[in-house]
Amino acid sequence: MSRERLYLYDTSLRDGAQTTGVDFSLDDKRRIAALLDALGVDYIEGGYPGANPLDTEFFVKKPKFAHARFSAFGMIRRTGRSASNDPGVAALLDAEADAICYVAKAWDYHVRVALGTTLEDNLAGVAQSVELAVQHGRETMLDCEHFFDGYKANPAYALDVARTAYKAGARWIVLCDTNGGTLPHEVERIVGEVAKHIPHDRLGIHAHNDTENAVANSLAAVRAGARQIQGTLNGLGERCGNANLVSIIPTLLLKKDYAEAYDIGVSHQQLAALTKVSHTLDELLNRAPDRHRPYVGASAFATKAGIHASAVMKDPATYEHIVPEAVGNRRRLLVSGQAGKSNILAELERLGVALDKNDPRLARLLEDVKEKEAQFYAYEGADASFELLARRSLGTVPDYFEVERFSVNAERRHNAKGEYVTVSEAVVKLRIGEDTSISVAEGNGPINALDLALRRDLGKYQPFIEDLELVDYRVRVFQGGTDAVTRVLIEFSDGSGENWSTVGVSANIIDASFQALVDAITYKLLKAGAK
Amino acid sequence: MSRERLYLYDTSLRDGAQTTGVDFSLDDKRRIAALLDALGVDYIEGGYPGANPLDTEFFVKKPKFAHARFSAFGMIRRTGRSASNDPGVAALLDAEADAICYVAKAWDYHVRVALGTTLEDNLAGVAQSVELAVQHGRETMLDCEHFFDGYKANPAYALDVARTAYKAGARWIVLCDTNGGTLPHEVERIVGEVAKHIPHDRLGIHAHNDTENAVANSLAAVRAGARQIQGTLNGLGERCGNANLVSIIPTLLLKKDYAEAYDIGVSHQQLAALTKVSHTLDELLNRAPDRHRPYVGASAFATKAGIHASAVMKDPATYEHIVPEAVGNRRRLLVSGQAGKSNILAELERLGVALDKNDPRLARLLEDVKEKEAQFYAYEGADASFELLARRSLGTVPDYFEVERFSVNAERRHNAKGEYVTVSEAVVKLRIGEDTSISVAEGNGPINALDLALRRDLGKYQPFIEDLELVDYRVRVFQGGTDAVTRVLIEFSDGSGENWSTVGVSANIIDASFQALVDAITYKLLKAGAK
Repeated sequence: MSRERLYLYDTSLRDGAQTTGVDFSLDDKRRIAALLDALGVDYIEGGYPGANPLDTEFFVKKPKFAHARFSAFGMIRRTGRSASNDPGVAALLDAEADAICYVAKAWDYHVRVALGTTLEDNLAGVAQSVELAVQHGRETMLDCEHFFDGYKANPAYALDVARTAYKAGARWIVLCDTNGGTLPHEVERIVGEVAKHIPHDRLGIHAHNDTENAVANSLAAVRAGARQIQGTLNGLGERCGNANLVSIIPTLLLKKDYAEAYDIGVSHQQLAALTKVSHTLDELLNRAPDRHRPYVGASAFATKAGIHASAVMKDPATYEHIVPEAVGNRRRLLVSGQAGKSNILAELERLGVALDKNDPRLARLLEDVKEKEAQFYAYEGADASFELLARRSLGTVPDYFEVERFSVNAERRHNAKGEYVTVSEAVVKLRIGEDTSISVAEGNGPINALDLALRRDLGKYQPFIEDLELVDYRVRVFQGGTDAVTRVLIEFSDGSGENWSTVGVSANIIDASFQALVDAITYKLLKAGAK
Repeated sequence: MSRERLYLYDTSLRDGAQTTGVDFSLDDKRRIAALLDALGVDYIEGGYPGANPLDTEFFVKKPKFAHARFSAFGMIRRTGRSASNDPGVAALLDAEADAICYVAKAWDYHVRVALGTTLEDNLAGVAQSVELAVQHGRETMLDCEHFFDGYKANPAYALDVARTAYKAGARWIVLCDTNGGTLPHEVERIVGEVAKHIPHDRLGIHAHNDTENAVANSLAAVRAGARQIQGTLNGLGERCGNANLVSIIPTLLLKKDYAEAYDIGVSHQQLAALTKVSHTLDELLNRAPDRHRPYVGASAFATKAGIHASAVMKDPATYEHIVPEAVGNRRRLLVSGQAGKSNILAELERLGVALDKNDPRLARLLEDVKEKEAQFYAYEGADASFELLARRSLGTVPDYFEVERFSVNAERRHNAKGEYVTVSEAVVKLRIGEDTSISVAEGNGPINALDLALRRDLGKYQPFIEDLELVDYRVRVFQGGTDAVTRVLIEFSDGSGENWSTVGVSANIIDASFQALVDAITYKLLKAGAK
């Protein structure tokens, strides 16, 4: 059976830029575009040239892509203008892009109220704008804004907009669920009806996640005939985000009904980089990756001690819906006091440590984990601290440095201008081999000051820790009153794409934080092979 | 047209407890169960009595629910045991619960390999265990584990398991997508086939989010006939989580095709508390609420300045798929002057403050709240700080005391016995009317030391604060790197049964904590009527 081609259109750089808190720089855009091209998506929408200087500049020169086509987004000609005399359309035609994706309203109400024009004028604008782009040799598409709500209100007009673009020569007519409220059964029905009027392999879907159905809506549209999926990496996008290509791509490649029916531009080899792509984007945006994200999250293939854990070990394939390595992820059996030997053995194996299950060091390590957890340590979220604990049980972690003492303070007082300010300062004294080193640092809080002082002079190890960055810091207090115990989880990054987490526990939050900081640095030195 | 009843079964306290990093205390379980009952779900699965001491204890006494039925989860009788002589089944029957939800394997491969028993013995176990629970007067259900994968491998056997439970008297037969890899079109087909053999209103669906389709799978099952949906709040759960009831409930109540066809136990009034329920759970778990979460996220109805923003102002209804207030959320426009006024009026009314909606102080308070929230303050989890902010806007909070300065330190050093110890000490200088007071205290951490020093000598106010106790302390960091902002939430109790929470925000954790401490004491003085 011959398979049909399904096309992926990424709008992370345009619709994804509408995400609350996201502000791409030109350099961000270039890096993300390169990521997307390497992943194998078919179209990369770079932005909206003419709408802002950044997007205009991004389209001055076409990026060199191995596979993807570069697409410029913008509105059809305005009411009262001819397409050839419209500055918006001109900016699109000036943009160095392979494709132009126009947007036009497909809901009669919006045409009349928001645009303040006639239904006919809107159709004429679609026809003229599409024709002009086609004449200029661009692959042309139309995003039909509010298509599904428009279709429910006035199906004939919504269809007219789509059909007008098709007749004018648009390669793709993309049906947009702009407000994100349409449900999968509606998408499947409506796309099916449109496919009676326009060849189904000219239809695309653009879904938003406002009912948590953006992925399902995209799949439903494909089942009804659509052959282009618009989405974003990690589901970036306004409000609740756009359809998440990071979830859609593995489903299309790995799930039988889709893999047998469709070809996509992403190969299995490219799919194996998906977890890294997703995490790299988070890194760029300075966001903590969602552990629970489908396919690529740190917990996506994790099993807690419970009725499943020992069975997973026997035959992982029947407990996992895909092989984690297919998307560049990995299995995690969470280490906890209830876990037992088999989880810990599996973790050790992953770390490259072969140990016989009757080795007395294994029993001792299990006892250590249990004792630590009784003190409120938690290794589930602190893989680096677990690795250090395990390797110490086996006697293979060098004593890189020893902390002789530290002190830290915070003081609130009036500054020279009479304003209240709070300042923090830390002193750390270390012994490194035969040498001692004492460092002081100010910080925007005591933990920050301690972190800076600790990393200021690590003697011969200093080159290994230059690029460290603390990316997450979490605190939880257990038990109330005077018996309170504080647990601190810290996550570090070194810019290589690898993040690691450590844990510290103490009655004193400073002490707990310091333990986690020392673990994080020790882990980095161990990984870097420092001697 | 008469509507069919659809039932909601929450498993946040059982399957949700499998979430990486989630550790419920008994008190957490009680609070979450009360939240769920108030929300209007039909069943609350409390846990797995007999599996661990915490769950067993939770079932010693049935919580008093207004609406929900309390359900105990556990395995059917083990191979080689009779149901009446099986300790696991006995623990379920001993549990003080209205319903028992058994789990049994429905995939022949798992029965043979993981259980190591015969297909017949597994069926006999289902029949005997269900019958016994029914005889004991419990509403009985069966979670058919791995049902969809099992059905694909051996449909006859998967059906046999379901049918056996039905014949033995189970009220509900729940089809579980245990590995989470089944897609919506498969769920719809398979549930439809099962419904030819078992009355559809006895079928339930239990979906996981491993392909980002858990919500769509639940809806697909309902379309095919299922009448019970199992899920969790905020999609808690192992790996990528369970079906998110927080997304499913508003879809069922607000989306035409579902609202017209089905009744659920949640009223529109209860729905209006949904955002608060979702955020309260995040607070309890010390997780930052996902801004982009469908329906309830802070950004779910936010519009960035762009092509939509001004149009949204003209006619929000055509740019929003539902009215945000229906789920207790609100519209956020960067330029909005109106948003939130009614929320704040309602809050003030709750505090017993009557204010006209045109009172200029209301507008000022609204500005204050907006400015504070832009700085990462959050008043949802800090009722006392909100009340202080509100009353200050109205000019009704006395300046009980003024902090002139404070300083705090933590030091790690060897003590007289040569052991490492970390000690903390704080000094606080206050002005109380004409007097000044300087106090010093040691604590088991800098916050504890500050708290003790602050409360050591409050002059004439000292009698009002003798019985205060800090019962919870939580920290969250926003933004990474050098821009990091720390938010501290503190909860105090005075033994009267009233607890109150305050918030502090600063780049410096000590400063943020001190703000929250000062608010907590000021609130107590205000409540006590101190002059």
